[in-house]
Amino acid sequence: MKVSILGGTGDLGKGLALRLAESSEVIIGSRDPEKARSIADQYIAEFKEKRGSVPNITGMHNSEAVSRGDYIIISIPYEVLPQFLDGLTVEASRTVIVPVVPMKKTKGGFSYTPYQVNGQQLSAAELARSRIGSQNVVSAFHTVPAIKLADLSQAHEYDVMVAADDRSIYERAAELIRSIGGLKPIYAGKLYVSRYLEPLTPLLLNIAINNKLHAPSLKIV
Amino acid sequence: MKVSILGGTGDLGKGLALRLAESSEVIIGSRDPEKARSIADQYIAEFKEKRGSVPNITGMHNSEAVSRGDYIIISIPYEVLPQFLDGLTVEASRTVIVPVVPMKKTKGGFSYTPYQVNGQQLSAAELARSRIGSQNVVSAFHTVPAIKLADLSQAHEYDVMVAADDRSIYERAAELIRSIGGLKPIYAGKLYVSRYLEPLTPLLLNIAINNKLHAPSLKIV
Repeated sequence: MKVSILGGTGDLGKGLALRLAESSEVIIGSRDPEKARSIADQYIAEFKEKRGSVPNITGMHNSEAVSRGDYIIISIPYEVLPQFLDGLTVEASRTVIVPVVPMKKTKGGFSYTPYQVNGQQLSAAELARSRIGSQNVVSAFHTVPAIKLADLSQAHEYDVMVAADDRSIYERAAELIRSIGGLKPIYAGKLYVSRYLEPLTPLLLNIAINNKLHAPSLKIV
Repeated sequence: MKVSILGGTGDLGKGLALRLAESSEVIIGSRDPEKARSIADQYIAEFKEKRGSVPNITGMHNSEAVSRGDYIIISIPYEVLPQFLDGLTVEASRTVIVPVVPMKKTKGGFSYTPYQVNGQQLSAAELARSRIGSQNVVSAFHTVPAIKLADLSQAHEYDVMVAADDRSIYERAAELIRSIGGLKPIYAGKLYVSRYLEPLTPLLLNIAINNKLHAPSLKIV
């Protein structure tokens, strides 16, 4: 599989890049192609150090990366998502995965701050669907601790709740998720369910703070 | 402890009544005291059959029940919650626990439908706080499968995420939750976090439907 990770410089982007590189071709996209190449080189070095083999990770401009991947993972800061999506053209055949969570730090902890569009509240995934104009948008990875994913020396076992408008779209995303050992995809429902999945990130951050837990996750039992 | 369960006729009310009756005095409240007594008698009979002992469960009018319990659990249908709260007077010393979830069935599954108050979206627990005028409001029990709680022949082990504005209020609720064997309270944050906890009920219903699971729950891992 070919996976393009747009903006893959945060913990989640790095974790997904390193883990996916075990079995897929990974393309790091950035608005600065030089930076994308430099990040790709860092990930290659880190992968090589931990795994001993050389992964297929390349870096290029977002606009080129987006045309290469079968999967497009949008892993950019939530603040810039609206503008980012406005400049993005994605072919209808691609599966777009959105792990973005709009949230802010407040005095009492972390708050979920969905996008306000024409008086409506939209989750990041719904915003992506409306701006990209494709149904192949998937919401996922909100409860996977990025910091653990990014550490190749750690094993993990996580449930990944996924929202997608159609089961066949979910299945395509599930295939990618399953390709990362230790991740188990679960179909949580149509894309609007992303409104319940995205707040799980601030919820888990609040739980971590209030209970002195390190990188907690949620398991379906 | 004395626990008043207002409207304790649904699966969750029944489950909490039966489980709490193992170590607490339970008062069932209803707007119809005759019905409250009849439900209390049913619960006593069921408890006696399963446990062999006679629990302390009584039934009375809501207004009387609300003055008796150290804990007040509001376990009524979400549709009638606003009117119900308008007629409710709770002493400031009581701990009020709100497991109510406003939601509706749609074509694609279940949707969370927070209350609209003066152009603001409020969770059930926040609505209760504003109407009751007390800070001692707690949001809990959204991920505990009511049907399993209500079946005394089943053992269970569940995490109970709790939102409360203050840790001391949380601790009081946690004591009650811990008194039910197999339930582990977790402090999820201030009461606004109930906006992320309440949608977990429709989320779990959607997950149950989409994955043919019976009464799933969420565990912090």
